[in-house]
Amino acid sequence: MARRSIWAWGLETDEPSQAERDEAAARLSKRFGREISAPPAPVLESLVIPAPRVLPPASLAGFATTASYDRAAHAYGKSYRDIVRAFSGDFSNPPDVVAYPRSEDDVISILDWASGADVVAVPYGGGSSVVGGVEPPGGGRPVVTIDLSNLNQVLEIDPVSRAARIQGGVLGPALEDQLRPHGFTLRHFPQSFEYSSLGGWIVTRSGGHYATNHTHIDDFVESIRTVTPRGIIESRRLPGSGAGPSPDRMVIGSEGILGIVTEAWMRIQARPRFRASAGITFASWKAGYEAARAVVQAKLWPANCRLLDPTEAGSAAGLSGDQALLIVAFESAEVPQEPFIRQAVRIAREAGGQIDDAAIRIADEGAHAGEEVGREGAVGAWRNSFVRAPYQRNLTAGMGIVGDTFETAITWDRWPAFDESVRHAVMDVMKRVAGGGTLSCRFTHVYTDGPAPYYSFQAPGTPGAELEIWSAIKQAASDAVIAGGGTITHHHAVGRDHRPWYDEQRPPLFAEALRAAKKTLDPAGILNPGVLIDP
Amino acid sequence: MARRSIWAWGLETDEPSQAERDEAAARLSKRFGREISAPPAPVLESLVIPAPRVLPPASLAGFATTASYDRAAHAYGKSYRDIVRAFSGDFSNPPDVVAYPRSEDDVISILDWASGADVVAVPYGGGSSVVGGVEPPGGGRPVVTIDLSNLNQVLEIDPVSRAARIQGGVLGPALEDQLRPHGFTLRHFPQSFEYSSLGGWIVTRSGGHYATNHTHIDDFVESIRTVTPRGIIESRRLPGSGAGPSPDRMVIGSEGILGIVTEAWMRIQARPRFRASAGITFASWKAGYEAARAVVQAKLWPANCRLLDPTEAGSAAGLSGDQALLIVAFESAEVPQEPFIRQAVRIAREAGGQIDDAAIRIADEGAHAGEEVGREGAVGAWRNSFVRAPYQRNLTAGMGIVGDTFETAITWDRWPAFDESVRHAVMDVMKRVAGGGTLSCRFTHVYTDGPAPYYSFQAPGTPGAELEIWSAIKQAASDAVIAGGGTITHHHAVGRDHRPWYDEQRPPLFAEALRAAKKTLDPAGILNPGVLIDP
Repeated sequence: MARRSIWAWGLETDEPSQAERDEAAARLSKRFGREISAPPAPVLESLVIPAPRVLPPASLAGFATTASYDRAAHAYGKSYRDIVRAFSGDFSNPPDVVAYPRSEDDVISILDWASGADVVAVPYGGGSSVVGGVEPPGGGRPVVTIDLSNLNQVLEIDPVSRAARIQGGVLGPALEDQLRPHGFTLRHFPQSFEYSSLGGWIVTRSGGHYATNHTHIDDFVESIRTVTPRGIIESRRLPGSGAGPSPDRMVIGSEGILGIVTEAWMRIQARPRFRASAGITFASWKAGYEAARAVVQAKLWPANCRLLDPTEAGSAAGLSGDQALLIVAFESAEVPQEPFIRQAVRIAREAGGQIDDAAIRIADEGAHAGEEVGREGAVGAWRNSFVRAPYQRNLTAGMGIVGDTFETAITWDRWPAFDESVRHAVMDVMKRVAGGGTLSCRFTHVYTDGPAPYYSFQAPGTPGAELEIWSAIKQAASDAVIAGGGTITHHHAVGRDHRPWYDEQRPPLFAEALRAAKKTLDPAGILNPGVLIDP
Repeated sequence: MARRSIWAWGLETDEPSQAERDEAAARLSKRFGREISAPPAPVLESLVIPAPRVLPPASLAGFATTASYDRAAHAYGKSYRDIVRAFSGDFSNPPDVVAYPRSEDDVISILDWASGADVVAVPYGGGSSVVGGVEPPGGGRPVVTIDLSNLNQVLEIDPVSRAARIQGGVLGPALEDQLRPHGFTLRHFPQSFEYSSLGGWIVTRSGGHYATNHTHIDDFVESIRTVTPRGIIESRRLPGSGAGPSPDRMVIGSEGILGIVTEAWMRIQARPRFRASAGITFASWKAGYEAARAVVQAKLWPANCRLLDPTEAGSAAGLSGDQALLIVAFESAEVPQEPFIRQAVRIAREAGGQIDDAAIRIADEGAHAGEEVGREGAVGAWRNSFVRAPYQRNLTAGMGIVGDTFETAITWDRWPAFDESVRHAVMDVMKRVAGGGTLSCRFTHVYTDGPAPYYSFQAPGTPGAELEIWSAIKQAASDAVIAGGGTITHHHAVGRDHRPWYDEQRPPLFAEALRAAKKTLDPAGILNPGVLIDP
């Protein structure tokens, strides 16, 4: 079985060959008008990895290791910064031990040992954090990374209530594979779907990517079972409750600082049989986002409502480069979707949108029922590029290209000025530190009260200086997001990387309360210290 | 201006006359076949109210009082137990001081004084708690009740994002009155609407009563401003966020133990113009609840989806007494609702529901657009009785009738056995302690994964022994709810009365974490001690 790459998105078999990378370098040389070469990818055997500062005790025998591969493979998440560092061969701060618990009891054994031995414990689901959420902290304390990939089962399905009890370590595809034979789906599709886990989604408040109405994983949680260093917190399975502050909502978003989600009862859905979708073009970004607002405020709750700015609509969906593209899609297991898409298209047209009637895809009945709709034309082009996006970085790693994304959410009233100031800040810093660059935006999610904009930037850099350039851009972008009233993250989480801006965003007394809660549950302060709050 | 009654639901002018109560007593005598009389209502001037143990300091001059009326009027909430006690003239444990802050600064002054003087502070919105949430605790510490009714303004409306900044003390009708001229509504209608406040809804996780999809007030909260004894916690206005555990979700459901909600940005809606509704009958309770499940799992998100059991459908909607009634209604400001109601009716009919096409009410276009639909026939009868229900108790107070409601939520898979065991437990205890009684049920809310059943019971009691009988029934009902896997409250809150069962329901370590959070925000432990957690 192919192993995960120590540096690339995906498996070792997904790593591009040197020939492919040379080809990419040649293309980039042409594009940027300067010599760009493809340095060789790192090889495990040549890495300098410090000796482990601690060895797994007998209680962890059989499921913990200090092998170099495991330690290297768990040294980083998958942010731009992570891939640059991994590709450069910098594995100076890996975990000392990697444990692969096979059961909840194993998780308890790990936390017991770590609490007693003052070992930092870093929970690890799919390892796709882009915010330094799974990276060992610096400092002298040894670190055990807890890889939950063996907790990968759907344990129970309740078809009557449409809910399933699922282990926290299961990755997206395996989860869906286990629900599919029963006719169900969780239908939560973050871009990291292939390499992110249910538990990871819960503790990072993941946003699904075909999702309005129920956008964040929060909305699908029925109950959670969490192992803390003090013991287990398990909430009741309930469709709704008004009994005090939600215990689940303390765990949701806790990013591993309070405990490890071993199981959750999740609300699942019957697999869609009726589908309808439309890609609607607009003469301008502004016309597009006004239309997106009108559609979402009509509360039709499409399964998908995404807006690409003219730059993204050009590069990802093949449009002319001066038109925005609004993608609206409806899905249902029970109800034909034609009336919904017609209303959405009507609203979008009233807001200036263009679409031929023939381009509205409807698979509601007869031969087309259940067919995958929306995989053709502009919508289909976007969808393919969405799923493949995380692999793109593999090809150009080490070539000095600086490219990343950042995302937020903001209310509609402040959005136009916010967009202007963010774009100004990022274009300005790219000009200063990299001589220029490109910036584009899409709405990955929309709410009645505001969009969740997702910005992508790319700038030419210099091999070896990428992180310096990247840091300057990240700083300017994050400063602009916070100054403009946005959230430092709508679905990427906080981790270690977003801490300075999160600290500005969250109410100081809330941080004090959270710290007190953590102290109660994790008295030794072993769980992910430095993530979200300082000890 | 009419004042609030010290014992009845509503104003002093809503108190029934002695003649009306005598008439009610005669009716009850006939019904129960024994002599029932109507004792006189309590009169403020004759009450024995203990002298205040503390006087308001200079910092509270001008907005705090120790007058008997104010102390008596704030001694209780509006539970069955409260009305029995108040009607009997028992005002032995009122607050010592009632403060009516006119501003956030006044709230801060009260908490500063209370923290320094070891005075218990009880936040009070509309005073409609049915769980002992606004009642002073026993014990020696003096008590100030903080009546927030002067914080009653909609401060700001953002029509673009559809959100409004609203003070925490505003009651339902005044809130809607201030939004209406702008074409907006919060559209959150708990049964206590007339005498409950925005801040109260937030801290009790109130459930709106024409609400599927967005059921609890939680879903409409964009940001909250809370005054704690340590200072102010204010979250950012955001349509969505993934930045750590939600600060708002710590306050939502906190029942006044962490601080006082002075303002919140709430998501509002355009006032509906398109409406459709249907009252669908079923041959049995089981057929009705299977249909309710099918409708909600189709995710059409009706504005209303309520189910009355045969008993309630008989008494509240005039049906035969052996049919269940499902009320489904749709509303929208933007989109005609006919396709939605047609689909819902189709699903309900497939599940055995009966409704004539002519009885489906649709006001989508032309002369009928915007007309109030659903106020006729069975639906209309139910709606009137819903709004008037809280006044019913006024008439029979003091006559020995024991009647109350309890509510929960439970997943669909466990629902049939749950219903059976709850009904058995309550019928059994009523037989034992009162010689019999009636019990009925409705679904006030439904979720894809389960219903929120709302039970009403009535038993003949004896004047003076009502509370003993009531306690036995309440105990048996609550025990059955918790043993059957339900929540002790879906929307009534925990307060002091639900504590024993809440303690069984909530994870013990969560209680410890919450206690630590409270200690951080309220170091002197003045805010609502004994509600939700012990100090």
